[in-house]
Amino acid sequence: MTDREEKKDVYAEALTLHRTYHGKLAVQATVPLNTREDLGRAYTPGVAAVCRELERDPSLAYTYTIKGNTVAVVTDGSAVLGFGNIGGTAAIPVMEGKAALFKRFAGIDAFPICFAEQSDDIVKQIRNLAPVFGGINLEDIAAPRCFEIEEELQDLNIPVMHDDQHGTAIVVLAALKNACTATGKKVEDLRIVVIGAGAAGFAITRLLRCIGYESRVCQPIRELLVCDREGIIHRNRPGLYSNKYKFIIGEETNPAGRTGSIADALNGADVCIGVSGPGVVTGEMIRSMNSDPIVFAMANPVPEILPDEAVRAGAAVVGTGRSDFPNQINNVLVFPGFFRGALDARAARVTDEMKLAAATALASMVRHPSLDRILPSVLNRGVARAVADAVRKAAIASGVALIVTEEKVKRGGT
Amino acid sequence: MTDREEKKDVYAEALTLHRTYHGKLAVQATVPLNTREDLGRAYTPGVAAVCRELERDPSLAYTYTIKGNTVAVVTDGSAVLGFGNIGGTAAIPVMEGKAALFKRFAGIDAFPICFAEQSDDIVKQIRNLAPVFGGINLEDIAAPRCFEIEEELQDLNIPVMHDDQHGTAIVVLAALKNACTATGKKVEDLRIVVIGAGAAGFAITRLLRCIGYESRVCQPIRELLVCDREGIIHRNRPGLYSNKYKFIIGEETNPAGRTGSIADALNGADVCIGVSGPGVVTGEMIRSMNSDPIVFAMANPVPEILPDEAVRAGAAVVGTGRSDFPNQINNVLVFPGFFRGALDARAARVTDEMKLAAATALASMVRHPSLDRILPSVLNRGVARAVADAVRKAAIASGVALIVTEEKVKRGGT
Repeated sequence: MTDREEKKDVYAEALTLHRTYHGKLAVQATVPLNTREDLGRAYTPGVAAVCRELERDPSLAYTYTIKGNTVAVVTDGSAVLGFGNIGGTAAIPVMEGKAALFKRFAGIDAFPICFAEQSDDIVKQIRNLAPVFGGINLEDIAAPRCFEIEEELQDLNIPVMHDDQHGTAIVVLAALKNACTATGKKVEDLRIVVIGAGAAGFAITRLLRCIGYESRVCQPIRELLVCDREGIIHRNRPGLYSNKYKFIIGEETNPAGRTGSIADALNGADVCIGVSGPGVVTGEMIRSMNSDPIVFAMANPVPEILPDEAVRAGAAVVGTGRSDFPNQINNVLVFPGFFRGALDARAARVTDEMKLAAATALASMVRHPSLDRILPSVLNRGVARAVADAVRKAAIASGVALIVTEEKVKRGGT
Repeated sequence: MTDREEKKDVYAEALTLHRTYHGKLAVQATVPLNTREDLGRAYTPGVAAVCRELERDPSLAYTYTIKGNTVAVVTDGSAVLGFGNIGGTAAIPVMEGKAALFKRFAGIDAFPICFAEQSDDIVKQIRNLAPVFGGINLEDIAAPRCFEIEEELQDLNIPVMHDDQHGTAIVVLAALKNACTATGKKVEDLRIVVIGAGAAGFAITRLLRCIGYESRVCQPIRELLVCDREGIIHRNRPGLYSNKYKFIIGEETNPAGRTGSIADALNGADVCIGVSGPGVVTGEMIRSMNSDPIVFAMANPVPEILPDEAVRAGAAVVGTGRSDFPNQINNVLVFPGFFRGALDARAARVTDEMKLAAATALASMVRHPSLDRILPSVLNRGVARAVADAVRKAAIASGVALIVTEEKVKRGGT
């Protein structure tokens, strides 16, 4: 069976699955509702006492309601999969899938919120929905709006994270750590090129800048360049001011002010991280890289360079977003455990320390990283637990946790 | 144990229940997620095919997503139980309870949406949330805003119903039908007084005006008066224009233009329907009513007149909202089955025919109505099925159903 046939098959099977089950989620009542007394406790008149407590102290929502274990998976459908702006309704299956994975891997009750319109009010609307939710997973929202939305929601006092940014950045960092181990490189010696300056590219770049901080030596990696369609981003590029986030990239990377094309950037580099589009990287570019190059070609479904071609051109480690090649670099390794840890700590927001801790915990799940095994299996249930524990501790250490005891995590996966 | 002690007990038990379970709902994944292939069908890459289908035809959300069985229970917390405006967070336990009952009695997946702010944008925000939901149950929103919100959402092409209005009106009409049977009165001969012109009072009034229509003879009930704090509403009352909904009441009831107090209204009346406040009705007023008076004193938790007092004053049938007296008139007899039927028909909106059919079906669940048994038990699982079937058929008959076949209803309670 060719790759194309196999894909066709999974698409047909996916349609059948969704048609058969009418979506992927159900809401269950968790309390007994069999007798008149049960109804009196769960609904009227008993529920009135609970409302009154919450009116007195809204923070008791964590005690008396579903809030503490419930996450909204929110999208406006403006940047879905490889399709771009297909709208909120067409995005429902992705959000349902995400919610299903939240439950499967971390016991979190997640519910899809899919906005019909891409409104300037989205921040206000998400803010207004927050009472029921203990965390908000932003999903498939286009850059640069996704940056602004996430930033503006940081005062909600619940963890708000755009997974396309930080989930991706965390799994990439974990993959990079283990790729270094497998190739004998040191992270701080790396020359890294990020191709793509959208949601993922920006977040990867910012997290890579934190690496030194994590080891408390504050030693940055040797060189970090970010490329977009116009080539290497540098602080003197005309018009950079017009995009706040590219301006930040210009300020925070490439201190030498290097200019040139993607090919120029990759010349002599150790690591190529592609979060852009199909076919952007050639075998020739790989051949121009430093010895034992690490290539993450994560454009989906067609990567920046096909793994076979990258290997032929001398790549030592190749990772993609796809399950049909070795080294699948997939957010599902991150978001369930990450939110589990953030909820368990009742983190008021997401910190860089939490992201770095998640990456370290994820990387450590592969005992002996090798060239074609830099990340654990997406089915490994220990991953979410390890990530959750690391994130919870990091939330406490970075002072954003409301629950700072080492109490046992009550809820597991299902 | 006195009534007060019993209440105290149920409140303490409710707090314990909510604390123990951390709320009353859970979200479950319904599809297998055990193998890499499972993940490929439910999430990437397979889910892409489903998104593409939905982009092509958004109405396929009913086929491929949870939409067809999912209802939002939406509030801004502006009129919760007897507490009034306690806000969205304090209202969560009521919305969770409602969602739990939706599942328990009708197999519907319902999820609470509790707005943090009482914004003028609420219509826009609900509209924007609609993609995931096949129906919207508005709840505990203050009058007159609740009327406007419901009206403005009628073009959403999914059933949108404010339960405090129509759920109450339907259960009252069913109770009234059986109270007439029990007392030997004819509905069309009744002189009815509604006390209270808020959400419930307005909806009850409008539904009572449809009674003649239902029997296709278009014969209205003999007299219908509505009272608010100022007494009988009549079309010549100064300033009636300033409240659109009271103006409608002035136009649609009391054609004789009667004026006076609540006592004046009840003098000679057959039916008193109280949806106002505690103690508004006296024994003397009941004694002034026609023979075998029917008294629904539904203010909660303290009714307009206590059942014992009403009976002593000659009331033949007394109903309240409370479970600790006979004839509990409770919305839970209506909303699960009502939405089940509306979802099964894929009704584009809620019609009066659907409400009347629900009331008739609900009334018919008591084979031999008697003075202290005018409604079935809230635990009777046949109720939701009967209401659902009637509502589904009425949706088809009134031309708002997208599914018009007599196909078997797929989903039951749990």
